[in-house]
Amino acid sequence: MTRSDFTAGALMLADARRLRADRARQVADVLRRQVLYGEFRGGAALPAEAELVREFGASRNTVREALDLLRAEGLIERCPGVGTLAVAEKYPHGLERLLGLAETLREHGEVANEVRTTGLITPSREVSARLRRPPGEPVVYIERLRRLNGLPLSLDLTYIARDLGEPLLAEDLARNDIFVLLERIAGQPLGLAEVTLEAVSADPHSAATLDAPRGAALLMLERLTHLADGRPVDLEFIRFRGDRIAMSGTLRRTHP
Amino acid sequence: MTRSDFTAGALMLADARRLRADRARQVADVLRRQVLYGEFRGGAALPAEAELVREFGASRNTVREALDLLRAEGLIERCPGVGTLAVAEKYPHGLERLLGLAETLREHGEVANEVRTTGLITPSREVSARLRRPPGEPVVYIERLRRLNGLPLSLDLTYIARDLGEPLLAEDLARNDIFVLLERIAGQPLGLAEVTLEAVSADPHSAATLDAPRGAALLMLERLTHLADGRPVDLEFIRFRGDRIAMSGTLRRTHP
Repeated sequence: MTRSDFTAGALMLADARRLRADRARQVADVLRRQVLYGEFRGGAALPAEAELVREFGASRNTVREALDLLRAEGLIERCPGVGTLAVAEKYPHGLERLLGLAETLREHGEVANEVRTTGLITPSREVSARLRRPPGEPVVYIERLRRLNGLPLSLDLTYIARDLGEPLLAEDLARNDIFVLLERIAGQPLGLAEVTLEAVSADPHSAATLDAPRGAALLMLERLTHLADGRPVDLEFIRFRGDRIAMSGTLRRTHP
Repeated sequence: MTRSDFTAGALMLADARRLRADRARQVADVLRRQVLYGEFRGGAALPAEAELVREFGASRNTVREALDLLRAEGLIERCPGVGTLAVAEKYPHGLERLLGLAETLREHGEVANEVRTTGLITPSREVSARLRRPPGEPVVYIERLRRLNGLPLSLDLTYIARDLGEPLLAEDLARNDIFVLLERIAGQPLGLAEVTLEAVSADPHSAATLDAPRGAALLMLERLTHLADGRPVDLEFIRFRGDRIAMSGTLRRTHP
């Protein structure tokens, strides 16, 4: 074998590995969705490897690699004698309407909030400006760890304009969405919210609080909510556990 | 010192650490936003530590911990003799309208697509069903690594109904959004897309392809796009580098 034969062989091997990894990702993406949306709910096993090989027209190695990807994400587990089971399900959070968490997840279980901090603080200029309050005016700060059926789902940092925030502190924040309470206190519905969604790695302290591995992917939602009259009153920074939430909605094409 | 004094002291220390970590997260969240939205663009330094201490009413240790969090995210860097500089900026991707990537990021630079794979494949039943095609009918598969100004931004896996996908393969996929090409080929505009957003950790192969650290947080977008006449034609699985993209939009309250 000449040196260039050897090099070509090594390259072909690298290409084959790359191709298999690409094919595995393809298979994994389709299976992920089925797992996440509960297609294998209630202990139904995933199809056997041989069936997945047929279904995806993929090699057995590719199917195994795809299952490894999903196992690394904590979505499936192999149970000897039973097969491969779905062990996670993401809760759907709508991108259609502005809803509080308990409103959104009503059909999935009970949301309970551990109120970690509340109080009046002097916010930074950035926070004052976004809430359209004069610099130096105190705002109410609330920090909550939110659980669904007992499992940590999100860590929410909330800044609320003082006139609405102070009455809010007298309410039962452990069992109610802030949105619902705010509407009652303000005597008017909420209107629009500007939202930004990002994926971030969990810092060690957030990870510990959310009971997630250090560096776990979090879905971070920043949301500035306005009353129906247009006044911005509620600025939130929400870290969702990436493995427990999926945001869904509909986008419409309007010509650029 | 008695044993219980010692225990109380240790607990107070743990509480103080937790409080500082909580305060640091608060400070970091506000600064993150300013960094990500370009407030310190073009080499302007962040305010000095002493100024941040005043601005946030926080201790110097808290401010340092907040800056450490942002540094760990790769958003800022300390440059001796200059101060702390913003070294990252996220590109805004609208959640308002259905747009292709180049359309969305037009003002931020040039999108170039490295077409990694194209071809006709026999899709799994799940993909056929979502595209409303009969089982076993081939679809066109396209895999692209998309770069903005030369930096990897997303890895896109795309399944397109055969009648539109085959003519698409004759087009210049390196320089055009699929959306724009699809509309030309179909002779009608696109209509709605159903989207799902999640945060996932990068598997090793995706991380390598996107030039991101292994396990980096990715923003994963699954999108099923329909023609204006309602027919679903384009199913995509898009992995965005979490440190390069933020999705923004407006939600409206409609009463539950």
